[in-house]
Amino acid sequence: MADRVDLNADMGESYGRWTLGDDASLMPHLTSANIACGFHGGDPHVMRRTIALAAEHGVGIGAHVALPDLLGFGRRRLAISADELKDYVTYQSGALRAFADAEGARLQHVKPHGALYTMIVDNEEYSQAVCEAVAALGPEVILLMPPAVGEAAAAVGVPFVPEGYVDLDYDSAGKLVLERVKQVRDPRQMGEKAVRLVREGKTRTIDGADLALEVESICVHGDAPNAPEIAAAIRAALAEAGIDVAPLAELRGAAARP
Amino acid sequence: MADRVDLNADMGESYGRWTLGDDASLMPHLTSANIACGFHGGDPHVMRRTIALAAEHGVGIGAHVALPDLLGFGRRRLAISADELKDYVTYQSGALRAFADAEGARLQHVKPHGALYTMIVDNEEYSQAVCEAVAALGPEVILLMPPAVGEAAAAVGVPFVPEGYVDLDYDSAGKLVLERVKQVRDPRQMGEKAVRLVREGKTRTIDGADLALEVESICVHGDAPNAPEIAAAIRAALAEAGIDVAPLAELRGAAARP
Amino acid sequence: MADRVDLNADMGESYGRWTLGDDASLMPHLTSANIACGFHGGDPHVMRRTIALAAEHGVGIGAHVALPDLLGFGRRRLAISADELKDYVTYQSGALRAFADAEGARLQHVKPHGALYTMIVDNEEYSQAVCEAVAALGPEVILLMPPAVGEAAAAVGVPFVPEGYVDLDYDSAGKLVLERVKQVRDPRQMGEKAVRLVREGKTRTIDGADLALEVESICVHGDAPNAPEIAAAIRAALAEAGIDVAPLAELRGAAARP
Amino acid sequence: MADRVDLNADMGESYGRWTLGDDASLMPHLTSANIACGFHGGDPHVMRRTIALAAEHGVGIGAHVALPDLLGFGRRRLAISADELKDYVTYQSGALRAFADAEGARLQHVKPHGALYTMIVDNEEYSQAVCEAVAALGPEVILLMPPAVGEAAAAVGVPFVPEGYVDLDYDSAGKLVLERVKQVRDPRQMGEKAVRLVREGKTRTIDGADLALEVESICVHGDAPNAPEIAAAIRAALAEAGIDVAPLAELRGAAARP
Repeated sequence: MADRVDLNADMGESYGRWTLGDDASLMPHLTSANIACGFHGGDPHVMRRTIALAAEHGVGIGAHVALPDLLGFGRRRLAISADELKDYVTYQSGALRAFADAEGARLQHVKPHGALYTMIVDNEEYSQAVCEAVAALGPEVILLMPPAVGEAAAAVGVPFVPEGYVDLDYDSAGKLVLERVKQVRDPRQMGEKAVRLVREGKTRTIDGADLALEVESICVHGDAPNAPEIAAAIRAALAEAGIDVAPLAELRGAAARP
Repeated sequence: MADRVDLNADMGESYGRWTLGDDASLMPHLTSANIACGFHGGDPHVMRRTIALAAEHGVGIGAHVALPDLLGFGRRRLAISADELKDYVTYQSGALRAFADAEGARLQHVKPHGALYTMIVDNEEYSQAVCEAVAALGPEVILLMPPAVGEAAAAVGVPFVPEGYVDLDYDSAGKLVLERVKQVRDPRQMGEKAVRLVREGKTRTIDGADLALEVESICVHGDAPNAPEIAAAIRAALAEAGIDVAPLAELRGAAARP
Repeated sequence: MADRVDLNADMGESYGRWTLGDDASLMPHLTSANIACGFHGGDPHVMRRTIALAAEHGVGIGAHVALPDLLGFGRRRLAISADELKDYVTYQSGALRAFADAEGARLQHVKPHGALYTMIVDNEEYSQAVCEAVAALGPEVILLMPPAVGEAAAAVGVPFVPEGYVDLDYDSAGKLVLERVKQVRDPRQMGEKAVRLVREGKTRTIDGADLALEVESICVHGDAPNAPEIAAAIRAALAEAGIDVAPLAELRGAAARP
Repeated sequence: MADRVDLNADMGESYGRWTLGDDASLMPHLTSANIACGFHGGDPHVMRRTIALAAEHGVGIGAHVALPDLLGFGRRRLAISADELKDYVTYQSGALRAFADAEGARLQHVKPHGALYTMIVDNEEYSQAVCEAVAALGPEVILLMPPAVGEAAAAVGVPFVPEGYVDLDYDSAGKLVLERVKQVRDPRQMGEKAVRLVREGKTRTIDGADLALEVESICVHGDAPNAPEIAAAIRAALAEAGIDVAPLAELRGAAARP
């Protein structure tokens, strides 16, 4: 299987007077960061600072696009049209890209957040809409989502990297089992799951069965109480297993431009 | 004096369920459009539609950046820092640019709106901040403001076009006399003022004196009851006087890239 | 059947710089007004002005409570919890009541708006939540909704008035057939439908069948192009048929306090 | 001098996914709570929970009304009209009162927040506007502000309690010296300052002089890192000095209703 993998996490979810997560501690362990764009969290100043932090650590910069629901942190489904979805993705990605450009960096990827993420996975029309919106950002920008969206991405012709989770459980249908309050998980166990996911393309479901899962990126939840520790353990376990980590753009570079 | 001038107006100020202005009627008379970016008006769908309309008529696309005050339509001064100003300009310009790119067009200029416009004119630190924010958008993006901001633009090295008004009065100090409710003005008289402004670089103040005003663009207010009629009359008067109209980018092209 | 009926419409849906509807023309024809509370439209200044207008015409004042979705005008379903629904109703009703009190008037009723309205009709848990929120506003405040919600209101013990529509069609299941763009309807025909609805408790469905519908209030859509004309025609038809109109509070007074 | 004093603090400033302050720890030490109403912080769910917490501890409930600037946490001056100020106060106070009513409690007071607080202190027209808005809430609702606003309150006839600070410094002109980042202060010293303020009506300015300050309430900042410790120390020092603490409504009860 793969010998390289990207490690991504959600970043920049503070807003105005409110702080969320410990970005400074988690960022050094990542290769890609999904940065909030103001719709569910993040504000223009948080965006600027988070991009500077990512650039400082050589971490790939992604737009973490969301539903316009600050009050609900983008976690509540909203009955939007596919055109509305497209326009929200364009707006937020463009705003974030301008900060990346100003920092001398560039927009590497787009990853939907929260309820928008699951709405896209569950709905083909939405999948196509997000692919079209990302495609319009130019041929270099990658869509980061679960493997299920890969088909829509291929149809539209947008660069795509499939991701998986090791700090959330899957059910036997391959759906993520969401937690309202993040549990503290054993970092070493997360490391082992990550190595297995990359090496074997498999993960253990909540029912104890094995689920086949072809991913090139692993998402770590930044809002776990011990997120930096988990990320560090995953990197250590990957290193020990001889698996390199690299930002999405480098993975795609190898795969897509031979 | 000049033999060419740009004609700009504020566009895309509808929001969600609410419509403002008659963009479809006014757009054909313009050469540049200042398009709201969601902070004072405009929303992602209005932005997409307004950019499509501008592109259809060959009108230059500008980000009409504003204070984050939807309730006050960006018309109330807000005590922000220069860094906050910069980040608001970056955010909004980036969002609008993404829609322009998606439409196969490009971001031509940035023009501050409402209270932000006058705050920048009145404050050197703000002038410098907006110039820096626009400069970071790349060497092609023009700042459109009154002549007074030209010095700051030159110092920062950002492309700049000075603009003036014919449908608002100036006082003898060169300040615009704002109206809370737009008056209906005589289109023919607006046309005469426009020709004189371009040919002689002069306009009559509210006190009856002459004010020297070197501008390369004339702003028409879209929220006047008879805005399309005024814009048509200005274009007719300019044509009759042998003055061409052209988008900002073409004016700058001639001036800056000999 | 009934010899009195209330005539209600949505009012105060302007926001900041944007105007929606012609409240001044429609208000004199109503007996109750559903006034937007800032979540889908309306702002504190619009609320104050609209309440003053209602009080001037002796029109009953209602809180037109909505989902927190200004961008979508409260028309898109949002996956909220029943507790969230309750808190949104409390917040908006309280805000509107303070303006009514300041005007020397009082809060007569609460009516959910848009997607919230249909979410409540479709979901028992939501029905109970809105009933509880309105009950907590005190024994005088009436819930105005379709007959289907009457059972939940009775169970919670909240004053309730059932309403029906004559300017929208019902299907044979008793559901309203929504229109994205309001049609221009024949005012005289609307008047006839209103009289039949009050006298016979019946309305013709879109399929041509008769639907039994026991209502004490008729809702007129303020956003129809000819809304004031329709409201006037309905009042004229009711008067001709010997049916009085009265605000909800008076209807309830007769019914509930013998 | 006084033998009783109220102890107030800002509460309920969390918003959606974001937590601010440790309300559960601070509340037991207070007699009055200024609860955010959604404009600078707080949301309908936070409001409900914070009011329940206050009621549980017998703490008086106040509306902490603010400018509509969530992004700036209500700390940036906004050029509003006096009418806008009034309407913002009415809206927020009404919303909060509905939650107090639903909890079986009542709205005790209104206290402006952040930039609105200083705008009112600095401007007579604003002072009158806030007094009028609070007066319209009924004769029981108290305005809580610095002594300087007492004159406007008397003129309008609104119940008024003057407050002072012991965890911020005053300059010799009697103005508070604001801190962008809250310092950790010595709780015992805060207790001594509180006793002196109540007993002698004096406080030491930042210049080392004595400032006369007649207050009936002391404000403790909830966002200091050791806020609960400071509040506990103040209460202990007051108790040791034989000074009782009581909510605003009880202080006023003694003073205003002989």
